[in-house]
Amino acid sequence: MRNVICARCVKCGKEYEATPNLTNCECGGILDIIYDYDYIKTKLTTETLANRRNPTMWRYRELLPVEETTPDTELRVGWSPLYEAPRLAKRLGLKKLWIKDDGVNPTASLKDRASAMAVAKAREAGAEVIACSSTGNAASSLAGNAAAAGLKTYIFVPARAPKGKLAQLLSFGATVISVRGSYEDTFELSKQAIERWGWYNRNAAINPYLSEGKKTVGLEIMEQLNWQVPDYIAISVGDGCTIAGLWKGLKDLHAIGFIDRLPKLISAQAAGCWPINRAVETGEPWRPMEENTLADSIAVGVPRNADKAIMAIRESGGLTVEVTDREIMDAQKLLGESCGVFGEPAGVTGTAGVKKLREQGRLPADATVVSVVTGNGLKDVANAIAARGEPISVPPDMEHLLDAFAEHEVPL
Amino acid sequence: MRNVICARCVKCGKEYEATPNLTNCECGGILDIIYDYDYIKTKLTTETLANRRNPTMWRYRELLPVEETTPDTELRVGWSPLYEAPRLAKRLGLKKLWIKDDGVNPTASLKDRASAMAVAKAREAGAEVIACSSTGNAASSLAGNAAAAGLKTYIFVPARAPKGKLAQLLSFGATVISVRGSYEDTFELSKQAIERWGWYNRNAAINPYLSEGKKTVGLEIMEQLNWQVPDYIAISVGDGCTIAGLWKGLKDLHAIGFIDRLPKLISAQAAGCWPINRAVETGEPWRPMEENTLADSIAVGVPRNADKAIMAIRESGGLTVEVTDREIMDAQKLLGESCGVFGEPAGVTGTAGVKKLREQGRLPADATVVSVVTGNGLKDVANAIAARGEPISVPPDMEHLLDAFAEHEVPL
Repeated sequence: MRNVICARCVKCGKEYEATPNLTNCECGGILDIIYDYDYIKTKLTTETLANRRNPTMWRYRELLPVEETTPDTELRVGWSPLYEAPRLAKRLGLKKLWIKDDGVNPTASLKDRASAMAVAKAREAGAEVIACSSTGNAASSLAGNAAAAGLKTYIFVPARAPKGKLAQLLSFGATVISVRGSYEDTFELSKQAIERWGWYNRNAAINPYLSEGKKTVGLEIMEQLNWQVPDYIAISVGDGCTIAGLWKGLKDLHAIGFIDRLPKLISAQAAGCWPINRAVETGEPWRPMEENTLADSIAVGVPRNADKAIMAIRESGGLTVEVTDREIMDAQKLLGESCGVFGEPAGVTGTAGVKKLREQGRLPADATVVSVVTGNGLKDVANAIAARGEPISVPPDMEHLLDAFAEHEVPL
Repeated sequence: MRNVICARCVKCGKEYEATPNLTNCECGGILDIIYDYDYIKTKLTTETLANRRNPTMWRYRELLPVEETTPDTELRVGWSPLYEAPRLAKRLGLKKLWIKDDGVNPTASLKDRASAMAVAKAREAGAEVIACSSTGNAASSLAGNAAAAGLKTYIFVPARAPKGKLAQLLSFGATVISVRGSYEDTFELSKQAIERWGWYNRNAAINPYLSEGKKTVGLEIMEQLNWQVPDYIAISVGDGCTIAGLWKGLKDLHAIGFIDRLPKLISAQAAGCWPINRAVETGEPWRPMEENTLADSIAVGVPRNADKAIMAIRESGGLTVEVTDREIMDAQKLLGESCGVFGEPAGVTGTAGVKKLREQGRLPADATVVSVVTGNGLKDVANAIAARGEPISVPPDMEHLLDAFAEHEVPL
């Protein structure tokens, strides 16, 4: 990889050759991929990109840690739509707001970006089996992207994973191990199994390539905004890998001169599980927390990528915000009604955070904001229905319909 | 609309001016939009299209019945991926197979194409409320696309609609009326309500513009295949509007010289509800049937667009095939495992049909086939899980994992 210099530990600074099988540093720290931006600048310009027809994350190949000979992965991951949301901006009292809908990815979440990268690197490593632990979306995206590539998967999920994600896993032909314990328990068991059987490791906090896949969401946002930097980018935070990846992408673009300043990050966590935000807010090291939220994808009490995430939020001069489950489900409805975008609970937590920051007066009215929806609402239908209530139910005749409309005070 | 000549009844031939509010002919027949292909040929070439950046159905504007001043709709509908599927082709013993994954549309089904058209035409009509009846996908797509456009919706669904679709409707802020009856009952009640309150009508078999939206799936398939015509295109059939729309798109392209021959259609219906295929096979007029299939989107015993659909299948010299629910759920797994595409039951019925036709020897091994997946598997998780079985469940330790792997005979 001519564009990659090495992998460097974010804790002790030790450097490693960027081989496909890299995991954590021997000190336990997480590795970061270091690029040769001078070289990349000679290969990639905004004009090159503008003329590129590839509507996937692989359009940014010069900024990705893969060999030139490694093929694009099979599913169409990335290049999700960025919608300007004037009605929602107005309701929140914001100058400009865009919604990045990553729920239309092939397996319906942002995690497809990391899983496509895992498949590419597993191929480089000559692996035929990939494994991971996940609260659900990393798992289903890995199962789908690996199936499309003809690779086998072993997936460890906590027993609480929503039905939608399980249905995907089973349909993609993964071997699914449902662990009767927390996400932390699930992660530990997957780690032991991966070591024992030598599978390719798609755990995002151990495999340094995966947040390089996730960073493409940041690259896309900026290209879709024609390199005009918004003041803030809001995103939900669980394990920490996604916000760290987003930040890496933005810094890459700054390093090669595609953007002239960096946005501030908004890190939105659930009020029932916010170890990363607590560390940022208190200045103390992060400590484990209970996982008390229905937003399953970000119910991560022991975040595996806390270091990179905390660094990213601080470096950007960003904001942290915690939202209740009620606020999350309200944001789901708000996004659906005003934008036609249906996100899963964790998927809309960033938008819930933007709303709360406006109400708290911490986000100025003249700010320009991008809010990333990280997963599709169809992933977790039970919570959506519980929050929305049942539809109006009638037998098939007009008399009953008129009665029901009157009873429910439907405006006609 | 300079490109549209008129709307013509498929039954009696009577012609109407193509106003936005068109419904059925006074004889009860369905209208078809008639284009001025000579004019369109002067405006649209394959080169023009190749240089067009718009990755939505609106890239085919010259072939769509909208005013030049009518804006593109808000959500990114269309330009879904067409995946070549060599592993699945091999398993089915086919020369070439492509999967068109329309489940990655904004509300996760092909119906977004018709609903985006409904929103565009409602705007031309100056309407602020749109209504429809639907087994689910037309409804959720209308609710989503209308919400994004700031329009209000009234949606009539049969009580059996799967939870995923209901969750979407409620989250998009639609007024949802769940009718305790069949799809036919639901349709009739919606018709009365639409007449009573003067809402814009998005019932696909009454509004002739909607299949013009659906036809974009055919336009895309051909552009994505670089105008090389496959031997067959397979799709599931319920109401009949989708296959009729697909055929219209293909005929449009033939009329303007973009393709030099037409593919044969494969009409796949459920063995528990196949009124359209029965009519094609027996040569008799279609008659109502029971709705005995778990593939809810095509459980249509009284197809509203049977005429156009039957004409399309016959005109193409196509094949009809009926598949059992078991065969449908097997096809879901086959597509997931070999392509990483997770379709809802009705969504994978076309692929189930291709498999069955191969087994019956009715589809030659040297055929080239496109199979359209019309909706995302996340729409109906309950049936997927019921078909797949539960995952392996273990407490969080290696000993139990080893035991469970042995018990389930997991290859390691």
